[in-house]
Amino acid sequence: MEYKEISQAVISRLPRYYRYLGELKDEGVERISSQELSKKMHVTASQIRQDLNHFGGFGQQGYGYNVEYLYVEIAKILGLDKEHHLILIGAGNLGQALLNYNNFERRGFIFKGIFDHNPKLYGLKIRDIEIRPMEELSSFIKKNDIDIAVLTIPKISAVTVAEKLVECNIKAIWNFAHIDLNVPENVQVENVHLSDSLMKLSYNSSRYHDIGKK
Amino acid sequence: MEYKEISQAVISRLPRYYRYLGELKDEGVERISSQELSKKMHVTASQIRQDLNHFGGFGQQGYGYNVEYLYVEIAKILGLDKEHHLILIGAGNLGQALLNYNNFERRGFIFKGIFDHNPKLYGLKIRDIEIRPMEELSSFIKKNDIDIAVLTIPKISAVTVAEKLVECNIKAIWNFAHIDLNVPENVQVENVHLSDSLMKLSYNSSRYHDIGKK
Repeated sequence: MEYKEISQAVISRLPRYYRYLGELKDEGVERISSQELSKKMHVTASQIRQDLNHFGGFGQQGYGYNVEYLYVEIAKILGLDKEHHLILIGAGNLGQALLNYNNFERRGFIFKGIFDHNPKLYGLKIRDIEIRPMEELSSFIKKNDIDIAVLTIPKISAVTVAEKLVECNIKAIWNFAHIDLNVPENVQVENVHLSDSLMKLSYNSSRYHDIGKK
Repeated sequence: MEYKEISQAVISRLPRYYRYLGELKDEGVERISSQELSKKMHVTASQIRQDLNHFGGFGQQGYGYNVEYLYVEIAKILGLDKEHHLILIGAGNLGQALLNYNNFERRGFIFKGIFDHNPKLYGLKIRDIEIRPMEELSSFIKKNDIDIAVLTIPKISAVTVAEKLVECNIKAIWNFAHIDLNVPENVQVENVHLSDSLMKLSYNSSRYHDIGKK
């Protein structure tokens, strides 16, 4: 299978398939046609077939998709069949919110350590995980087989911290700082730019109503 | 100007232009060519020109873009020249993180009210904003000219709350609940599905390394 050619647009849709299949599974649904799935998800049946064909299809003519099987297969594709070890950098409100989100752990994303530059926080615990000084970052990453770093720090420190993470051989950064990180090509960054998202909402709602008023 | 035809892909890129122009402005840069902007932003100069042409261009041959002017114009396009009144529904960690994020207020997104279904929280304040019972939602929205509702509640209650918001004539929902909301066409929803984002990162980092190892 050639994964390299799959566009980020397709990949962005995979977690949504996974979510809907999980719900179907929980409801006891055993199989579903692309037409039925299409109605539920508000995308075309042909897009569903095309998207899933990138990974080998999974569907059978006249039968549709086996929900449980497809759910498990998409989980594998998304890397959810392995445990991921995360560290959080920045123990503020947003960081704490992420730590307290049970959903991640259920999917195999386990927070192992928390780092902050504020000495007052050292030794305090959030969900039984100790907050540590940044100086311990490098040794902690090695010792605990960390593969994902979550950045919930202000933009001014994000660039320096990202450089440090690259030195520590981290290959995946989930970045909540409102800045684009320049990292080597072999380091994956997924940005959550909350301000950008809010501005897009602002644009869409303003425009819709301007047009409506015309 | 025909705003309706502009794709969501272009609109998703606007806040990023806005961010880079803001940084240039703060650095005292007065003008910039699409080539220079292209290098900074790691997108092609032709994409920059195409994107901005949707809104009337703004650039001049041989001069480039006037940073301050373009910054102000994009702000207007994004609806940042007006004040937006927000309510937060769900006073948990994530909700608190959003309330404490100064950046939103600086851009004109003002939180006016907080709602939660937990009676123990009623009357408590976050950043001087009182937490209120859901029963007051409808009257509060009318009285305070609320245009954006932020949902930081679990998925099980999100659908019902969204229906209530639609009844209250809310036209924009910033949804952090891990579920797709079915709302009428004239209601804009912008989703922040954190689990989906983390799964995408997991996919990209797993794939990259699988390919690397081949």
